[in-house]
Amino acid sequence: MSDEVQRSQLSDEECWDLLRREEFGRLGYILDGRANIVPINYRVDGRSLVFRTAEGSKVHAIMIDHDVAFEVDRVEDETATSIVLRGIAQPIDHPHEGYFEQLGLRAWLANRKPILIRITPTEIHGRHFLLSRPWKHMRR
Amino acid sequence: MSDEVQRSQLSDEECWDLLRREEFGRLGYILDGRANIVPINYRVDGRSLVFRTAEGSKVHAIMIDHDVAFEVDRVEDETATSIVLRGIAQPIDHPHEGYFEQLGLRAWLANRKPILIRITPTEIHGRHFLLSRPWKHMRR
Repeated sequence: MSDEVQRSQLSDEECWDLLRREEFGRLGYILDGRANIVPINYRVDGRSLVFRTAEGSKVHAIMIDHDVAFEVDRVEDETATSIVLRGIAQPIDHPHEGYFEQLGLRAWLANRKPILIRITPTEIHGRHFLLSRPWKHMRR
Repeated sequence: MSDEVQRSQLSDEECWDLLRREEFGRLGYILDGRANIVPINYRVDGRSLVFRTAEGSKVHAIMIDHDVAFEVDRVEDETATSIVLRGIAQPIDHPHEGYFEQLGLRAWLANRKPILIRITPTEIHGRHFLLSRPWKHMRR
């Protein structure tokens, strides 16, 4: 079996295209000196990502350290695309009326999540992989 | 539209069942004081996760700070399940011959990734959500 794999970097525009098509990603942040990951439902607003959240340890962490990572991926049968960005997360203090609706942004969980957080990317990298998944064809 | 959402915690056994069914997750780690996320192809080995990687900043980071987070999710049309674990990541120094094949573990990218890392969870949490995704039905 060949170990050759096609792999390509995405342009910034391709990264944003995928970010706009998806709505579900994972936020990486630091709390008490430890790495944390949490799944997040987000929307793209211009060149930033916005999500809603409730008061809690995630918001607490972001208020202390605005530097976050965010990952969105799409895995299909033989290919995968992953966008990883670094950015600055900050609350949107006074969203104008109708802003939630404008974004089509409601909480992934439809409970009360009154805090809006914007992530402004400082770096964005996208990679597209051709998956080999050889174990699917391996003899045991 | 109702804001009611069903949401449930998974048992440890349900978490491990999902971890075994999936093969693709995201590793969260700290490097130079910043949160990082990277997609990882993994396999379950007993009550640990194992992945292959090449020498690089991720391995460097894990050697300095073994404390990592890992997330695996499955999003279906109306539901999502997410497993988030914290654990200790350490290299497997001398994998016995045939260990890769035993796990069915080869690199997600089929290039040279000679380093095996084991994540031993210290905490594991799984949540199952009924997605409302109201924006799919919203009038613009």
